[in-house]
Order: sequence, then C-alpha cells, then structure tokens
Amino acid sequence: AAAHKIAVLSGDGIGPEITDACLKVLTAAARAEGEELVYTEALIGGAAIDATGDPYPAETEQICKSSDAVLLACIGGYKWDSLPNAQRPEKGLLRLRSSLNAFANLRPAVVLPQLADASTLKREVVEGVDIMIVRELVGGIYFGEPRGFEERNGERVGFNTDVYSESEVERISRVAFEAAMKRGKRLCSVEKSNVLEVSQLWKEVVTRVAEDYPEVELSHMYIDNAAMQLIRNPKYFDTIVTGNIFGDILSDEASMLTGSLGMLPSASISEPGKPGIYEPVHGSAPDIAGEDKANPLAMVLSAAMMCRYGLGLPRVAQRLEAAVTAALDAGYRTGDIMQPGCSQVGCRQMGEVVLQQL
Amino acid sequence: AAAHKIAVLSGDGIGPEITDACLKVLTAAARAEGEELVYTEALIGGAAIDATGDPYPAETEQICKSSDAVLLACIGGYKWDSLPNAQRPEKGLLRLRSSLNAFANLRPAVVLPQLADASTLKREVVEGVDIMIVRELVGGIYFGEPRGFEERNGERVGFNTDVYSESEVERISRVAFEAAMKRGKRLCSVEKSNVLEVSQLWKEVVTRVAEDYPEVELSHMYIDNAAMQLIRNPKYFDTIVTGNIFGDILSDEASMLTGSLGMLPSASISEPGKPGIYEPVHGSAPDIAGEDKANPLAMVLSAAMMCRYGLGLPRVAQRLEAAVTAALDAGYRTGDIMQPGCSQVGCRQMGEVVLQQL
Ligand SMILES: CC(C)[C@H](C(=O)O)[C@@H](O)C(=O)O
Ligand SMILES: CC(C)[C@H](C(=O)O)[C@@H](O)C(=O)O
Repeated sequence: AAAHKIAVLSGDGIGPEITDACLKVLTAAARAEGEELVYTEALIGGAAIDATGDPYPAETEQICKSSDAVLLACIGGYKWDSLPNAQRPEKGLLRLRSSLNAFANLRPAVVLPQLADASTLKREVVEGVDIMIVRELVGGIYFGEPRGFEERNGERVGFNTDVYSESEVERISRVAFEAAMKRGKRLCSVEKSNVLEVSQLWKEVVTRVAEDYPEVELSHMYIDNAAMQLIRNPKYFDTIVTGNIFGDILSDEASMLTGSLGMLPSASISEPGKPGIYEPVHGSAPDIAGEDKANPLAMVLSAAMMCRYGLGLPRVAQRLEAAVTAALDAGYRTGDIMQPGCSQVGCRQMGEVVLQQL
Repeated sequence: AAAHKIAVLSGDGIGPEITDACLKVLTAAARAEGEELVYTEALIGGAAIDATGDPYPAETEQICKSSDAVLLACIGGYKWDSLPNAQRPEKGLLRLRSSLNAFANLRPAVVLPQLADASTLKREVVEGVDIMIVRELVGGIYFGEPRGFEERNGERVGFNTDVYSESEVERISRVAFEAAMKRGKRLCSVEKSNVLEVSQLWKEVVTRVAEDYPEVELSHMYIDNAAMQLIRNPKYFDTIVTGNIFGDILSDEASMLTGSLGMLPSASISEPGKPGIYEPVHGSAPDIAGEDKANPLAMVLSAAMMCRYGLGLPRVAQRLEAAVTAALDAGYRTGDIMQPGCSQVGCRQMGEVVLQQL
C-alpha cells in the first residue's frame, strides 16, 4: 500500500507532548497492520505567530492541502491573548478549517464505563451516554458577512451575520443522516426557529433531506431546550445536527457530561477526497504545558478517527481504540481522570502504556 | 397607599391554573401588609391569537403600558406550532418585551436545599448553587436587522444579524454590576469575543463599566466554556451577564442544574418608572394543561420578584418567599418535584398550602 501523508500540527501548550506520545502509538499501530504513515510537521497557532507572525502561514496551508489528513493537537495560550483577533491563534484554526472546507465537525460524547464516576452528573444519568454531535464548521455566524464595527447614531456598534444557504444545510444534514444510519437512527436537529429566520431555513432543509432517510427518526429541538435536555436526560440523544455556534456550545456542554474532556476526539470532514482535520476537543492547557501531566488519549482517539474516516484504515483505528480501553482497564490514569485505586501516570508514560497494550 | 396596578397575562396551557393559584396567594400576602393590588387581565400568546388573530393585541399593549407591572404566566402550545412565525405565540412574547423595553432579564438559578436531590447533578456539586443570570432581552440577534430570506447564487439563504451598540451593552452591564454588588460581588461576562466582533464590543464596554464598580471582581468567559463550567463547577458563578441568545441558552442550562424548573422565577426590568415583566422560567406544558398537576410556585416566586423589583414592596415579597419555603419544608410537592416521603398535591392544593403558610 502507498504511504499515507499526514500533516502534523502540534500547536501550543501541551500540544507538543501529546503529539509526541500520540505519534509513537499511531506509528506502531499502523506498522502492526503493515501500513506506512508519513508525517510532515507544520506550524499553527501561537507557535506559528512566534515564528512567522501569522497563525496559519502559507506553508502550513500548502502542507495541509497536499496531505491525506491533518492531525492537530491544540492551539492558544495566555501569551497571545492580547493580540488583535486577526493575529490570534484561534484565527489560525478558523482559517485552517475554512481553507480545507472542513464543513462537518463530528464530536462524539461517549461516557466510558471506566470513567462514569468522573462526571459531575449522577452515574445513573450518564452511564451509557453515547452522543454524536455533527456541527457545521465553516459557515454560520463564524464566517457570515457583513461583520465588523460601525458608527451608528453617534455611537459604535459591533455586528455579525448568522447566515446559511440551502446547500450548506443540505450537505451537513446528509453527513448527519449518514452518521445516524450507522448509529441509533435517531437524529435531533437543533436550532432556534421560533425566533431566527436562519434557523427556519435550517429546519426546512433538514426536514426535506429527511425524505431520503426514511429509516432515521428526525426530531427538532430549540437550542435552549437542547441545553436543558442534555443535562436532564442525555440518553435521549443519539445523533445531533446543528449550526456552527450552537454546535460550539452544545458539544462543549455534552463533552462535560462525560467528565473527561481529556478523552474526547473530534473529526472535521471535508468533501470526498479532501483532507479532514482530526483533533482533541480539549484546549492547550497552558497551565500544565511542559510538565508531562497532559492526557494524550484524546489525541490518540483523534488519530483513530483519522484512520477510520480519513485514511480508510479501520483496523488501525480499532487497534488504537482497543489499546486505549486496555490502558484504562489496566488502571492507568493521567491526573485529569485520576480515581481512587488507579495508578497515576504522566503524559509520556501513558503513551508507553498504550503502546504496550497495542 | 395607592393601589398597585398589575396587568395579568395568564396565557396558554397551564397558565390559567397557575395564575389562579398565584393571585390568591399574592392578594393575601399584599393584604397582610395593608397593600392593595388591582389586577387587569389581558390576552397574550395563543389565547390572544384565538380571540383576536394577534398574539399581542393593541389592547394588551395598552393595558401593560399603563400598569405598574406585568405578571405573565406562560405562552405557546402544539396548537399554534404550524402558524407562520409572525403569528405565533412566541412573537407575542417578543413584542411584549420589546414594547415595554424590558431590556434586563434577571434569572436566578438557586438550588433549594429541600430539592437538591432532584438535580441530575451530584448533590455535592449543586448544593448551595446560587447564580443570577442577567440576560440582555431586547437586542442582539433576536431583534437585529437586516434579517430574513434572500436568493443568492441561485439558492435561498436565511440570515439574521447579531448586533449590540455601546449604550445597549452599557445599560445591561450596569444592571448586572448593581446586581453583583447586592450579591457575591463577582460578575462573569459571557461572550464569544475570540470569534465575533459583536462580542468584542460587548467585552470592551463591560470592561469599561467595571471601572465604576471597583468592588466587583469581573471575569470574562467564552460561551462554550461557560456551558461547560456550569456543569463542571456551578458554584464558581455568582452573577453572569450576557447577550440575548447566549442568555437564553445559559439560563435554561443553569435552570436545569436546580432540577426544578417548576420553581424558577424571572424578572424583566425596563427603565426606571416603566413596568417590568415577571414570569416563571418554565413553559406552558400543554401536555398537562387543565389537569390540576402544574406547579404554581415559580409563578408565586415571580410575583415575589415583582413585589420586590417592580412595586417596591419587599415585605410582601418576603412573605411570599417564606410561605413557599414553608410549604416545601412541610413536605408538600407537586408531581414535577415529588420525592419519597413527601405529600403529592395538585396545583390548586399547592396554592392553598402556601396560603395557609402565609
Ligand atoms: C478556539 C475556537 C475558535 C473554537 C471554536 O469556537 O470553534 C473552539 O471553541 C472549538 O470548538 O473548536
Ligand atoms: C419562547 C422564546 C421566544 C423565549 C426566548 O427565546 O427568549 C424563551 O425561550 C425564553 O427564554 O423566555
């Protein structure tokens, strides 16, 4: 088989350490299946700002576009927080997503039986929760025009536009229905159509696309209600589809149900044949950067998503996932998921433990 | 003392039953303090649509504007769900808020010790939670122009504008800082300034207003992080200030922490001297309407907020709150908050129990 080309963006904060641990594990899992992976490192976020002044340099864009998949750690940190927005690490992430047209962000929120007690919710409420959130990632209010600042009636206003076209909603809906078909066949579309026109168009298009998926049970929920139901009865949800900003909020809320942000991967898929972006849900945790305390498992699971969705290597994905499960079953925990009776390990050692379980 | 004029909007679903129970209690509490309240009923929401074709008839607007305060139950129901948006019950609510310029929505999320076990979160996480969410209510994406549908590049788009001016942010900030001063003196401003210009202006203005409140500790949080932290560590929060749509989401999420939506009141304050709107956070629960199962306590507590913030009758407010607490302490519960060992009562009987405790 030909080598798979992977752009590796280790970013900021704990990024380099978790990338290090992750790549060792990923390389071994691929080798065990006779697959060759070629890594090309590139700069993004604060690291790129420091080196080039630009959070998403042209060279990085070129490397990403010519890869089969992009594996990203995390970006950002206190250091760059006072820069104007266009020059901040986050802007690099948004430009990365947009330049690859990575429109479908898949974020599983799965409560692992080994970690169910880590949740602040009662065990009986979260045990067995398995939600897939499909978030539109390159449209909506994140990218809508016009946007900016203006003088109106003698004072300044700030404004943004939340906008979706039929084709944008249609393509994200199809990804969500396909995902639901492979899962519990229940899809909940989340919007605010009792107030917003952009949500009315959203609801209309999702309802139309549903005709092509008669097996999937479609429901509609307002965002405020969804934010409640995720806490009241998270098991109600199977697959959720929503726009960019609502998805940002809901997926972070859902991730917290699991009690283990350090365990959650994500995939951001583009059109067929184009590279997707695979990254942990957690941030760059500048407070513990360089201390060998970070949890590399979310990035390992992101690499697994990359193998499954981006590279067509489901067996490598399974190996990675099984090794993570085995490491947890063997009682190893990083500080963020530490529990009584378990063995606490650092980032590097957790990588080694997973490697052994492979 | 002159009589206080109250516009009573009983709305839809369980609205009439809870209004009935609430007014009996409110009248008795006021009488005990020698205060006279005059109620004028008016139509809103679905009830108004059925009677007049308009969810916020001119007559209702006139009654509200000439009152000292508006006491609202709840609106909406399946029956009107398929109407075009401009004719739906929700539109009546939005027009009510806007016409009274009720710009500051105060939503306490308090975990009552008697009900801490009703939460889906662990008792130790929610016990003692006491958050005040101050939500901007007549601006932002709810009311921003331009909005609507358009044909672009051969397909339809739906769009809305999220917009805030300096003066809009300033006035809601002042309400929030004043609220924080009377509470724990910690204010968290929630926005998405790493992505949105409207949020950058928001943050800038809140920071500027903070100079007038040196005793209040101000923090800033992104909405996605706030949605997480509310679950991870709700006790972190004292007072929160945020825009219309983020406030809609966060306040519903926070209300669910308490496990008792049927207990939560809200106040929507206008400029000094103008009537505010006082209403429970819960909806119209059409599924149990007319069955004498609803919980009237959120509306009683809303009436208490009305007495305190709207009518300058803090002693009546205290009487109402104390009576509600006493009814809970005596073990009475409606179905939504029923617990083992308590006595389950209907809406009417709960009203009577509170009346006895007065
Ligand atoms: C860092 C930020 C721009 C980003 C977003 O809002 O999309 C993050 O919160 C995420 O969800 O990946
Ligand atoms: C009914 C709806 C229009 C309303 C809102 O979104 O403001 C409700 O959710 C609320 O929070 O009072």
